Amino acid sequence: MIDIAIIGGGPAGLSAAINAAQRNKKVTVFGRGIETSMLYKAEKVDNYIGMPDITGKKMLEDFLSHAVSKGVEIKHNKVYQIFKTGDFFTLNADNNFIEAKKVIIASGIEKGKPMKGEKELVGRGVSYCATCDGMLYRNKDVAMIADSESAEEDLKFLSEICSKVYFIPLYKYKGAAYDNVEIINKKPLGVIGENVVKGLSFGDMTISCKGVFIIKESVPVTSLIDGIELENGAIRVNRQMQTSVEGIYAAGDCTGAPFQISKAVGEGLVAALNAVKEL
Amino acid sequence: MIDIAIIGGGPAGLSAAINAAQRNKKVTVFGRGIETSMLYKAEKVDNYIGMPDITGKKMLEDFLSHAVSKGVEIKHNKVYQIFKTGDFFTLNADNNFIEAKKVIIASGIEKGKPMKGEKELVGRGVSYCATCDGMLYRNKDVAMIADSESAEEDLKFLSEICSKVYFIPLYKYKGAAYDNVEIINKKPLGVIGENVVKGLSFGDMTISCKGVFIIKESVPVTSLIDGIELENGAIRVNRQMQTSVEGIYAAGDCTGAPFQISKAVGEGLVAALNAVKEL
Repeated sequence: MIDIAIIGGGPAGLSAAINAAQRNKKVTVFGRGIETSMLYKAEKVDNYIGMPDITGKKMLEDFLSHAVSKGVEIKHNKVYQIFKTGDFFTLNADNNFIEAKKVIIASGIEKGKPMKGEKELVGRGVSYCATCDGMLYRNKDVAMIADSESAEEDLKFLSEICSKVYFIPLYKYKGAAYDNVEIINKKPLGVIGENVVKGLSFGDMTISCKGVFIIKESVPVTSLIDGIELENGAIRVNRQMQTSVEGIYAAGDCTGAPFQISKAVGEGLVAALNAVKEL
Repeated sequence: MIDIAIIGGGPAGLSAAINAAQRNKKVTVFGRGIETSMLYKAEKVDNYIGMPDITGKKMLEDFLSHAVSKGVEIKHNKVYQIFKTGDFFTLNADNNFIEAKKVIIASGIEKGKPMKGEKELVGRGVSYCATCDGMLYRNKDVAMIADSESAEEDLKFLSEICSKVYFIPLYKYKGAAYDNVEIINKKPLGVIGENVVKGLSFGDMTISCKGVFIIKESVPVTSLIDGIELENGAIRVNRQMQTSVEGIYAAGDCTGAPFQISKAVGEGLVAALNAVKEL
């Protein structure tokens, strides 16, 4: 059992990690690699005091090496779900089940709004996790929407078990071709279906399918954990960075604007020290 | 008129300053110099992510030079009072009166608890400002308590106008000798008097005086501005770092624990961006 699981390896998550590690706690950061952070592409950052005029890439590299030097364990897994199990939590990280006493969510801002019908049909055909739910669609037709190359393993997996996969990459796909995968280079507009998924709409065309997999860098936070409350679309926290779920803290962009490094780093520290206090 | 006056030149104040300056606002930081910060004496700081294993002195120097490089104006004045004047503020900074549209308090943690009788007798003989109130005690006996060398100008001033000054340095005094100044190397325990100051008690001895000047690095926040609300001894703020006084924000140690650089830097940014938004 680890002491604190941190979801997200950006500035908030790494700041939380070094502060918990400094208090001698066993910490694991679950992140997709710093190159997936929006900050990584920033040409110049000049408002994180003490590190003037630096690229986003260099800053993230410095943050990461600081964390690694403090003994923080970093796993390149995506966390799909967090279950409350008595007085601790179980995380599904790419189908590895990991127990943690406290959790800090530092998953960043969710890119893009949900599509029409998406939220309503989660668990009724809409899924954020191919490895979790893929088998439910064996020998059926599905659609898979992905925002980056990191989803391509999921595509391979779905192609092996489903009859047909409509693949909608929201980036330039340069991956393999599969006999039963049809690539659609259009922006999907809505999930079709009343109580269960019937298809996917692109405005001028529609495809028919039983499942819609939406594979993004991070799972929407309301799908990650039951009962977590939002406020203006961000995770609701108090000044101690506690969420509405006891034992779960949040820090950084996922708690709302301003979306800035200093805020993320400060909130990461506050979340970590409060989580440590409750251990 | 400046846009934003920042009280305090530590991590919170300097972070607020660079962020407001980056938004093209006219910012002045009122600080007593980085060497007065508690952080300045820290041998090693290792939990501000991106700047591993650094001395407090080096960190503050880096923070200051970053702020100066962004065009932040720094004044080595102490702010004694803030008055609300219509929809802006007037600050008394060592008897210079400065107008500002918004104020950010980043004055750090108040060292030491108030003495017995201190709070009750503020304005009735207890004063935090020799230049403001000294003339009220012309040809009278006063006591002056000071926590650092920066108060020694005030001592000279009081010695010139008062009959006698009992000087109680809370540090090792190496300054000048004055005919009418008696140095007492004891810890004062309480201010004596019912409605007005009558003297000062040291437990085993008592001195008789009409005024007690308490000269610390920063003025207690409740004396700085009328109507500001505290919570557990710290300035009450919301997640936007707004205090109970509209137009006044707070950041860093003065808003409560944890007393950490990352928290201060993050809160400074949030206070600055929200103040800028309201300009």
